[in-house]
Amino acid sequence: MEFILPKASLLLEARHRISSFVHHTPVMQSRLLNEISGATLYFKCENFQRMGAFKMRGAANAILSLSPDEQARGVLTHSSGNFAQALSLASKQIGVPAHIVMPQNTPAVKKAAVKDYGGRIIESGNSPQEREAKAEEIRLHTGATFVHPSNDLQVILGNSTAAQELVEDVNDLDFILAPVGGGGLIAGTALAAHALSTAKVIGAEPSGADDAYRSLRDGVIYPSENPDTICDGLRTNLGDVNFPILQNLLHKIIRVDDKDTVHAMRLIYERMKIVVEPSAAIVLAAVLMNPEIFSGKRVGLILSGGNVDVRKLSEVFSLAE
Amino acid sequence: MEFILPKASLLLEARHRISSFVHHTPVMQSRLLNEISGATLYFKCENFQRMGAFKMRGAANAILSLSPDEQARGVLTHSSGNFAQALSLASKQIGVPAHIVMPQNTPAVKKAAVKDYGGRIIESGNSPQEREAKAEEIRLHTGATFVHPSNDLQVILGNSTAAQELVEDVNDLDFILAPVGGGGLIAGTALAAHALSTAKVIGAEPSGADDAYRSLRDGVIYPSENPDTICDGLRTNLGDVNFPILQNLLHKIIRVDDKDTVHAMRLIYERMKIVVEPSAAIVLAAVLMNPEIFSGKRVGLILSGGNVDVRKLSEVFSLAE
Repeated sequence: MEFILPKASLLLEARHRISSFVHHTPVMQSRLLNEISGATLYFKCENFQRMGAFKMRGAANAILSLSPDEQARGVLTHSSGNFAQALSLASKQIGVPAHIVMPQNTPAVKKAAVKDYGGRIIESGNSPQEREAKAEEIRLHTGATFVHPSNDLQVILGNSTAAQELVEDVNDLDFILAPVGGGGLIAGTALAAHALSTAKVIGAEPSGADDAYRSLRDGVIYPSENPDTICDGLRTNLGDVNFPILQNLLHKIIRVDDKDTVHAMRLIYERMKIVVEPSAAIVLAAVLMNPEIFSGKRVGLILSGGNVDVRKLSEVFSLAE
Repeated sequence: MEFILPKASLLLEARHRISSFVHHTPVMQSRLLNEISGATLYFKCENFQRMGAFKMRGAANAILSLSPDEQARGVLTHSSGNFAQALSLASKQIGVPAHIVMPQNTPAVKKAAVKDYGGRIIESGNSPQEREAKAEEIRLHTGATFVHPSNDLQVILGNSTAAQELVEDVNDLDFILAPVGGGGLIAGTALAAHALSTAKVIGAEPSGADDAYRSLRDGVIYPSENPDTICDGLRTNLGDVNFPILQNLLHKIIRVDDKDTVHAMRLIYERMKIVVEPSAAIVLAAVLMNPEIFSGKRVGLILSGGNVDVRKLSEVFSLAE
């Protein structure tokens, strides 16, 4: 199948569309992490994004791209993670109903967050099949538009706005790194970098959940089976919308062991004094473990989010000892 | 004894003197913490200062205020905490020797940090008397100038630059809060606010180490005896240099229980996504526990630092449960 690159104007439209609903997040630097890495690092702090993660960008763009009629009928997703919260908060701000299908075994704290943001929770069975069946039932009943957390072009275009801001704020980057989970952030990053810069885009993926690495190597989408990683945001599958973007625009994927991710995460806490989740710290680990690629280069790193259970941080950091 | 207010020009000179050795740190806001507090909060992020704390400001100013001869002979302090690191790093940058007297029982990690920053460590016995005797011995031997971590006018003037930046960046503050430990930061904050704004300055002090509260109430300096608080930076005594400044310029001291400090610290991690130490989070706790003072007001909060052992964070956060 032929790959058709989305027009650059679509990227810029997404940026314009969501601008009043998201923060233009700051870019941070650390003298010490530059010394350690031998590179010049520019951290794009999506942990400071509303709701604590880049997901707000894609969620807002997906909702704002709908017609007024569609908006009135609302949006729908099945997610137990950040995207459910992002879609709920974006819906509340824009003023449309959000229906969130969550498995019965979803932790209470995640349900509470969605409720806080005004999302309507519908419980489903715990299997993917039950979840999807329930979502389809709600869709037929309400007429709401289903929004996939990562395999949706408008979500990807929304996510692209983080890298758009980064290349606007920092000139002449050689590389931009983003984590690889469901593929929505890395695909948006690749689109933005290709359209607006000469930076090569590299994905960082956990060794214990390297389905994207294997999928790109073999040219077929492998499901993420029994993922084994502390990066809880990076356990999901690629999809047919983001995969061709990655096949055409991604420079490469670097696989990272959890131990190295946790070490990088500790450096970010201790040296930069900011809170990030393991799924974000993985990009710094990829840089630190590969000086032959990054030494002497100007490197943008998308810190995807900072939603971590602070009461369990000691447990996380102990993994690197 | 008559109190003589240091001239405003001294404050501005300190600011100018240290400007190339410290960061002008950012001011952060949080929509959610504004909602929770009912006030408009401006967080002065000294956790992003070099070396992770405001202490760099006072250390740099103390060294830069010396004559060339004095600088050549070096500086000297006894401290096992942040100030030892700050004096070491500032000395290294300015190019003067730093002698740091540390008790034998100082944790290895703190000694390593001082060594990393180029400080020369001299071990002493563990009692305050032994520490002071050793410092005096080194002073006589080297001719180095002793710099007290908090009871030194040049240190206080250096510390004042954090609040100077804050009132320059944010207009019309009603209050500025800073933590009260040895009195060096709160005294500098009070001087800056008095000279350059109409803001009232309030100190936040742990209930379990409320020597400054009692000292100001009774008009005598009480030593800090058996302090019982998680705020390890706030266990020290006031001194004869900073006490009169506080007597004349401080609006009041609010005492804060550790449980409330830890709760505030968790809000800062979860909502602002930044790393702070308990001694910094105490200022937010003081605001949250006293809506009758702060509701509807514009409040500056000096987040003094972010040097915390991240491997022990779970332990800290469990104190609020």
